[in-house]
Amino acid sequence: MKSDLDRLMQENDIDAILVTGPGDHNPYMVYLTGGAHLTKADLIKKRGEEPILFHASMERDEAARTGLTTRCYADYPTYQDLLKAASGDPAKALALRYQQMLKDAGVTKGHVALYGKTDLGEGYATFATLQTLEPDITFLGFQENVLLKAMATKSEEEVNRIRHMGWVTAGVVENILDFISHHTARGDVLIRSDGEPLTIRDVKRRINLLLAENEAENPEGTIFAIGYDSAVPHSSGTDGDIVRLGQTIVFDIFPCEQGGGYFYDMTRTWCIGYAPDEVAALYEHVFSVYQQIRSELKLNVPFGDYQRRTCELFEAMGHPTVNSDPKTETGFVHSLGHGVGLFIHEQPFSRMDENHPQLLMPGSVFTLEPGLYYPNKMLGVRLEDTYWARPDGQFEILADFPMDLVIPVKSYGQR
Amino acid sequence: MKSDLDRLMQENDIDAILVTGPGDHNPYMVYLTGGAHLTKADLIKKRGEEPILFHASMERDEAARTGLTTRCYADYPTYQDLLKAASGDPAKALALRYQQMLKDAGVTKGHVALYGKTDLGEGYATFATLQTLEPDITFLGFQENVLLKAMATKSEEEVNRIRHMGWVTAGVVENILDFISHHTARGDVLIRSDGEPLTIRDVKRRINLLLAENEAENPEGTIFAIGYDSAVPHSSGTDGDIVRLGQTIVFDIFPCEQGGGYFYDMTRTWCIGYAPDEVAALYEHVFSVYQQIRSELKLNVPFGDYQRRTCELFEAMGHPTVNSDPKTETGFVHSLGHGVGLFIHEQPFSRMDENHPQLLMPGSVFTLEPGLYYPNKMLGVRLEDTYWARPDGQFEILADFPMDLVIPVKSYGQR
Repeated sequence: MKSDLDRLMQENDIDAILVTGPGDHNPYMVYLTGGAHLTKADLIKKRGEEPILFHASMERDEAARTGLTTRCYADYPTYQDLLKAASGDPAKALALRYQQMLKDAGVTKGHVALYGKTDLGEGYATFATLQTLEPDITFLGFQENVLLKAMATKSEEEVNRIRHMGWVTAGVVENILDFISHHTARGDVLIRSDGEPLTIRDVKRRINLLLAENEAENPEGTIFAIGYDSAVPHSSGTDGDIVRLGQTIVFDIFPCEQGGGYFYDMTRTWCIGYAPDEVAALYEHVFSVYQQIRSELKLNVPFGDYQRRTCELFEAMGHPTVNSDPKTETGFVHSLGHGVGLFIHEQPFSRMDENHPQLLMPGSVFTLEPGLYYPNKMLGVRLEDTYWARPDGQFEILADFPMDLVIPVKSYGQR
Repeated sequence: MKSDLDRLMQENDIDAILVTGPGDHNPYMVYLTGGAHLTKADLIKKRGEEPILFHASMERDEAARTGLTTRCYADYPTYQDLLKAASGDPAKALALRYQQMLKDAGVTKGHVALYGKTDLGEGYATFATLQTLEPDITFLGFQENVLLKAMATKSEEEVNRIRHMGWVTAGVVENILDFISHHTARGDVLIRSDGEPLTIRDVKRRINLLLAENEAENPEGTIFAIGYDSAVPHSSGTDGDIVRLGQTIVFDIFPCEQGGGYFYDMTRTWCIGYAPDEVAALYEHVFSVYQQIRSELKLNVPFGDYQRRTCELFEAMGHPTVNSDPKTETGFVHSLGHGVGLFIHEQPFSRMDENHPQLLMPGSVFTLEPGLYYPNKMLGVRLEDTYWARPDGQFEILADFPMDLVIPVKSYGQR
């Protein structure tokens, strides 16, 4: 939690944090500012002190709304003057300004951890230059990620925002389920009211509209993948593909609050009209493992233990897993879950890393998402919900929704 | 243009380009791949050779769709093994993999320019470590940005995509204009059909819906700012503000193709019901400068010359400008324009930098956006269109739309 940050900085020997990049869609910045429409900003927080937000003059009101102490870039030499002082080297020009900003924030030595969304070329060149200008400071990358560690447990207010996105997500899934079930099939193809086949593009367009209506967005896209695409976990689906009966559809939706706030993550697997025996059997395997893992969840256990357990359960059913073969492309090919917050993927991860176990702690918000994939059979099944590890030891699905596999539809000829 | 890239690399002594980050919403990556739903990827292009795209196993099909030569991270040691080899240092673990990837791409010495959207901490630490491992390679930041230079002129295909976004943008602006004009005023407040006042939030919600309907998005937000907010160029508007008559509204809309493709950029200034004399006068100043600059546009002239000219014209009218006072917050407080492409702001910039003039070249796509701001009077006016410098010497507005200041509405009592 944010209130742990100074303690985490102390424990990890971090004297200051520097976050750069835009005010929106930049999780570390949003975490510390609460979100602000800033094109480009910097935030410096010295351990034990409040952060200072540096901003452009034109964005002074947006910056002020954060309630943080602010400083304007206009208080520093202009970029043209900095460039002159840097003999035309833009990296050095920016480094000279950072040097002054750090000094103004009282940071002149020690370990400074770097964060924020930036361009690799700009970020690397600027801080490599700044490192040579400031030998008493050591700039650190992601070796000790105190911000991710703080973000790994959520306050009730954060949980409420994630739950709200969960309701939005469940509402969209329900609407799409309804939309599909009101179509009629001709042969194995769903037909739109204009007589043309329903495509993945049609469905995705509706998803995007529904998200916009709910002041949500999906900056990372949405997976609505049918047939072969469903068998490749990160295939987002092919726009021109036709929505057909009897094929597995993996619908993985992970929207966030508009402007880049908190995410939610949910996956359902559907078969329209009917499920072939092979699909139903695969679905039962995933569903039973999902239920089993869910029933075994306990506080303060490494998430990686459940990853191992999931692999064992799937292997006992005869499926290859990433445990039996780390490079497998069939069977259980990914990890069991991940934390969800301002990043769609954040701590805790279900990595089996005994040296750095990531526990399911009170306040953790994370997904469970077992799945099985057989590209050669064009089959994929994944089920996923987002859980909150409550301080009272209960694990709560933040937005529950039925897991039925088959979506019934009418066929032409049926009346 | 992309076809200039090898020449630009040669001229700027760049031996290879390395681009990292997601496949979407990552302009440099999108430029070289054509766009792909990849969570995290790397692309290495040696001068004179085709790029190689490195991707996760789960995203192999998305990677293959780009048509590029691809290599899978699974062909390299696992992260766990890399971490072991790096004695637990994650930056070194990633650096070890990059070392192998560069070797596989035939890059073992010379200048490698770094690009792409990344986390500052990860990017800085990884490449600072890699630099120590590879003394024969010099990693460069943004000193010689050959990709931005290539992107600064557009092919016809790129112009057509920007023009399409222009039509979407103009359609949204027309819809919002229509939407507002169909409201009725009670006193100076526009009233919704439910009897409540119309708010900025209502308008923005409609904008987002319209964009989603048109398979567009606005990852950088939309400015719909009234009264005081309109007088601060980057204020995006306050959700709870009520849409009132007789106040300046700055509507700056800059959406892109869904997934992070080409942008368009347009601004109109509106006054609902009527324009007070002071507003009408300010508007006339901005409109006349806009028309004057537009009429003076010529190929192969530095964009910065028009910035200077704009300042001269506004100063002759008695307004402060960034030329008379670089830190002014009243008058003409920003730059005249910027290139538009996969970035909303890219080359050419209208910066007055005689050492690095950025010309309006055949194929340049850029905005003209003069504006005047008086926060103490709660007044702001900006007018903006996106232009294409055609090879035949004409400057074409890619999506034209009327510039009328006043939006007429009915009042209660009027019949």
